[in-house]
Amino acid sequence: MLNFTHNIPTRIYFGRGQISHLAESLREFGTRVLLTYGGGSIIKTGLYDRVMDILSDEGFTVIECGGIEPNPRIESVERGVALCKEHDIDVILAVGGGSTIDCSKAIAAGVYFEGDDLWDMVATRHGVLKALPLVDILTLSATGSEYDGGGVISNMKLNQKLGNGYTFPAVSICDPTYTFTVSKYQTAAGTADIISHICEEYFSRTPDSDLADGICETVFKSAIRNLPIALAEPDNYEARANLMSISSIACSGIPSYGKQGSCWPCHSMEHELSAFYDITHGVGLAILTPRWMRHILKKDPTCAWRFVRFARNVWGLDGDDETALAFAGIDRLESFFRESGIPMTLSELGIGTEHFAKMAAHANRGGLLKNSFVALDDEDIIRIYTDCLN
Amino acid sequence: MLNFTHNIPTRIYFGRGQISHLAESLREFGTRVLLTYGGGSIIKTGLYDRVMDILSDEGFTVIECGGIEPNPRIESVERGVALCKEHDIDVILAVGGGSTIDCSKAIAAGVYFEGDDLWDMVATRHGVLKALPLVDILTLSATGSEYDGGGVISNMKLNQKLGNGYTFPAVSICDPTYTFTVSKYQTAAGTADIISHICEEYFSRTPDSDLADGICETVFKSAIRNLPIALAEPDNYEARANLMSISSIACSGIPSYGKQGSCWPCHSMEHELSAFYDITHGVGLAILTPRWMRHILKKDPTCAWRFVRFARNVWGLDGDDETALAFAGIDRLESFFRESGIPMTLSELGIGTEHFAKMAAHANRGGLLKNSFVALDDEDIIRIYTDCLN
Repeated sequence: MLNFTHNIPTRIYFGRGQISHLAESLREFGTRVLLTYGGGSIIKTGLYDRVMDILSDEGFTVIECGGIEPNPRIESVERGVALCKEHDIDVILAVGGGSTIDCSKAIAAGVYFEGDDLWDMVATRHGVLKALPLVDILTLSATGSEYDGGGVISNMKLNQKLGNGYTFPAVSICDPTYTFTVSKYQTAAGTADIISHICEEYFSRTPDSDLADGICETVFKSAIRNLPIALAEPDNYEARANLMSISSIACSGIPSYGKQGSCWPCHSMEHELSAFYDITHGVGLAILTPRWMRHILKKDPTCAWRFVRFARNVWGLDGDDETALAFAGIDRLESFFRESGIPMTLSELGIGTEHFAKMAAHANRGGLLKNSFVALDDEDIIRIYTDCLN
Repeated sequence: MLNFTHNIPTRIYFGRGQISHLAESLREFGTRVLLTYGGGSIIKTGLYDRVMDILSDEGFTVIECGGIEPNPRIESVERGVALCKEHDIDVILAVGGGSTIDCSKAIAAGVYFEGDDLWDMVATRHGVLKALPLVDILTLSATGSEYDGGGVISNMKLNQKLGNGYTFPAVSICDPTYTFTVSKYQTAAGTADIISHICEEYFSRTPDSDLADGICETVFKSAIRNLPIALAEPDNYEARANLMSISSIACSGIPSYGKQGSCWPCHSMEHELSAFYDITHGVGLAILTPRWMRHILKKDPTCAWRFVRFARNVWGLDGDDETALAFAGIDRLESFFRESGIPMTLSELGIGTEHFAKMAAHANRGGLLKNSFVALDDEDIIRIYTDCLN
């Protein structure tokens, strides 16, 4: 087991009606609130009115910053930072999924950024000095942004989508009933995101970090069990609650404690797809993950033991032929994604080979992906993208 | 799944050499340090010298408060509080196991206690107002005090041992190498404590909190796998590291998130044993737990499904006769404890029936244990104590 640091200061209120903690959570930090949200689904569901009623009744001053994109853009960060400065904001309240929370983290840090161009903060590690406090109300089980310090921001002019560390939410209100109205497509894509986070952490060369690996296998199994229920019965509380609770831990870093780290190769490759084609993050990950798995298993059979463990402990498969078992686990994962109804080829998304070389080069900038579970070079990445076509 | 709040602010530095973070961790809070420790094992192992060298090199002022008992006494809390007040202490550094850390938490809160008698703070919920910051260096994998806010203090004059919430450590330094010198007896007793924490949380009527139950089963299996290795090879880093990492999560409350809570009946019953006989906490728990399990399984067979799950998922047992399976899982747990070499009957500890009625009445004060997984009355508790005799 390797050394690790655990440092997650976020307080989570989980369950039905936990919005009752909203006013007290914000008031710790002040009374002037920037309310961030996405394309308006919270207005349709009535959550917007509920939040505004609470904030109004409790005497908060609210400045709105809606319309944050599914792959949030640097322009939204710039807009939010300007609003914070103009209105002397004390605390940001993000109501939405990972995109809104990610963008809000970048806004929170952007207020204190000392450079001229906020994209420089997104693209470098040293621009984040401190951040405004952030409270969120989660409406999608997917990215885990409610329980980590990172965010991913896109610059469509540069075709770049980059992750960075900004700030942890001070408080996350996680009420599974707010996900009852999430579409089948977004529910499946969000669960693919959760599963992909765990894949990036589970597939490690370290064999003996029991707690981290046990959490990984628990998350895999819970996702597999609960996604079909949530798709069939969108208002099944237990299924939605399990998906929400595993989403928070999946991206927290805890599932990789004590294990040799990876550089999250599927996320790197997916960020290029989203940066060039603005596709749904979880769909890109679902398409990439099984192809990445088959590619590395063929490239480096010394990693097969991990896939055998995945097949046995996650999918309950058995058999003496370990190579067959390793591939069978991957097949089961791909079938699981396919049965959830999301596109499972790049061709279905209208994506061809035209940018593969450029995307591979950027995903692997500075030789980043040689630090993967199995080292990848540009050619490997192009091969994986190509395998995703059909 | 039921509602829960997650709020654990402790930062953990886990692994070899993490004492390198000691000075920076203390300096956040000041320069005047109360150093608390137990019976001197840290002097024998050299850890005391290592700590003092760091504190001296880094310019800290150190006041010592050694000699904290294995079941820490109210007198040690009083002594520590007096030292903090006399020397204007900024931060407490606890070096030891759960007893030292528990006592240090009570000292940290005791500094701000406004009453005359510190036992009143221990015995009530409302006496804890705030606390001095606490940093700890863990030397025993057992109580999980390094990652929770509670502590248990004994008053031998009153034959009382009471838990309360005081404060979370700000920082816990968890270096598994510091447990290489822990005796076989204390290693086994500490692991029994870890397993008992999980039993108190796993045995719940709520069937669908996947993450919490998955963490419980992971901790059980890791304890079962690693204790024999640590007993056979005391300096096996991987075994010691796994035991240390599971100890922290076992008592954190996380394994019961979303589940119907219990009132920790084995801990209540054990606290009476320690209060009357000053026995090792983990040994008392190991003796009580399988007897408690058999008693409640006979008393209320509607809880059998949980024991069947325990037998299957933890011990890998199988069979069609679910009653037999449920009891077989308990037998395996008892055998596991017995094979670790600790006493498994009260008679071996020289404990007879003389105080059972009084102990049962106090363990169940206010009808506390009717809120257990299976409700217990005084007669049940006396029966369980009696079953522990041989």
